[in-house]
Amino acid sequence: MTSTPITDALRYRPGTDLADLDTRATPGFDGDKDDAAKELPDLAPEMADLQEKLFAAGYTGSGQRLLLVLQGMDTAGKGGILRHAVGLLDPGGMRLKAFKKPTQEELAHDFLWRVSREVPAAGEIGIFDRSHYEDVLVVKVHELTDAAEIERRYDAINAFEKNLVDSGTVMIKCMLHISKDTQKERLLARLEDRTKQWKFKPEDIDERGHWDEYQAAYATALERCSTAHAPWYVVPSDRKWYRNWAIGQLLREALRAMDLDWPTPDYDVEEQRARLENEREGGE
Amino acid sequence: MTSTPITDALRYRPGTDLADLDTRATPGFDGDKDDAAKELPDLAPEMADLQEKLFAAGYTGSGQRLLLVLQGMDTAGKGGILRHAVGLLDPGGMRLKAFKKPTQEELAHDFLWRVSREVPAAGEIGIFDRSHYEDVLVVKVHELTDAAEIERRYDAINAFEKNLVDSGTVMIKCMLHISKDTQKERLLARLEDRTKQWKFKPEDIDERGHWDEYQAAYATALERCSTAHAPWYVVPSDRKWYRNWAIGQLLREALRAMDLDWPTPDYDVEEQRARLENEREGGE
Repeated sequence: MTSTPITDALRYRPGTDLADLDTRATPGFDGDKDDAAKELPDLAPEMADLQEKLFAAGYTGSGQRLLLVLQGMDTAGKGGILRHAVGLLDPGGMRLKAFKKPTQEELAHDFLWRVSREVPAAGEIGIFDRSHYEDVLVVKVHELTDAAEIERRYDAINAFEKNLVDSGTVMIKCMLHISKDTQKERLLARLEDRTKQWKFKPEDIDERGHWDEYQAAYATALERCSTAHAPWYVVPSDRKWYRNWAIGQLLREALRAMDLDWPTPDYDVEEQRARLENEREGGE
Repeated sequence: MTSTPITDALRYRPGTDLADLDTRATPGFDGDKDDAAKELPDLAPEMADLQEKLFAAGYTGSGQRLLLVLQGMDTAGKGGILRHAVGLLDPGGMRLKAFKKPTQEELAHDFLWRVSREVPAAGEIGIFDRSHYEDVLVVKVHELTDAAEIERRYDAINAFEKNLVDSGTVMIKCMLHISKDTQKERLLARLEDRTKQWKFKPEDIDERGHWDEYQAAYATALERCSTAHAPWYVVPSDRKWYRNWAIGQLLREALRAMDLDWPTPDYDVEEQRARLENEREGGE
């Protein structure tokens, strides 16, 4: 039930005001919640096939990699995406990294150090739950470094991503876009449910006090780091079912576009078959 | 359709001859292939609940962790287990590590160095695809180090695992047990299918020539490293459906036995709810 390619529907176009992008919209999707819930798991077989082809290509020398970057305000749904969309992938070919508050060791290096160590290897699908963009988001909002360093980082990010892309990585950078009211509802829901209370921290409300500054920091990051090689996608995320569906579609579309196929064996199949069939007890 | 607890049915009992354990058996399971294929995905909701409780406990200070170790001869099915059984888990709380041929840097350290860096953190489910046991398996068969060092390693492994377990980790060590004939069938199947040819290497047949030595090395490892704190499970793996089902059951049983529950919030829920509900536009 896709009307336009999801990449076209969601790609951020520099100049667009983030506040004008509807957080309840369902771009590229004509159905409702039930349709999306049915469609998402139906992606699994094709994704499994494409992922295994990517993995096989990596195994035999291709430098192709995929990197999904997930960014969003608290409660935007990074966890739900891991469970429902990323969970469709084979864990064997996946490299997931959640970036937390940096350690002392990480802070002793430049901001890209910890990130560059976690990028996917050939054949892998990497998933970043938060990323180097935190270094121009939370760091900017709380002025954890000076303005000139923040300013420097946008170009450094673009150069870093260009190197990744030029050496074989396809990047899908997603901002999970929710409204301030939705965040309030979700934080209240966490407080009301004993199976969710552990996800809540009083600091979450303090951070909410900086909502507008965070939106401004996101707007600048989208503006400065939407490049031809690594575009941003803004995924309306007030509707969880749309958000999960959209991420699944973005993954599938990226994998399809990689034009993957099974590698040709670098050994003689008939010769190896004969070796196996003629082997004697106790070795060949 | 479980008749006895899976841990009892599969636990390796020192003194048992590995060759006496039937690779086509289905211990603890009364049904057939179709039943197993239906039962395995049905585990997902309970596993999701237990895994999230484990993760929540880790988030709030519990030192509980789970570590699944997968060992087996080539084609025994580590990949299939990742897809079908481990794939039931939420990737967000999982830490999967595939150990390959050691790098020069890894070889410059003691054999447990690279492994100890990859053990799960509090709240995580770690999965080792191969492990420190390779250092008493392939290393022993090919005499990559001297006999005295191999001998030393069994006790070193037991001490390493005891520290993990005493500090909160539950270990599930699985040997995926297949027959030599089954391996031959599976290698031939890889050669016959262009979607599987990339998994085959001519060296796989060379390694098959050492089958009996590998079985002997496994037997010694099981004998020496089956401890009360970290038992080995021998999973008959000629039938893929049984193997996947059994690993799912082992994971569930281990999670159940951890006696997990939602943590109690360390903040005042009513106070936080009031903060959220009374917040004014533009911050608190």
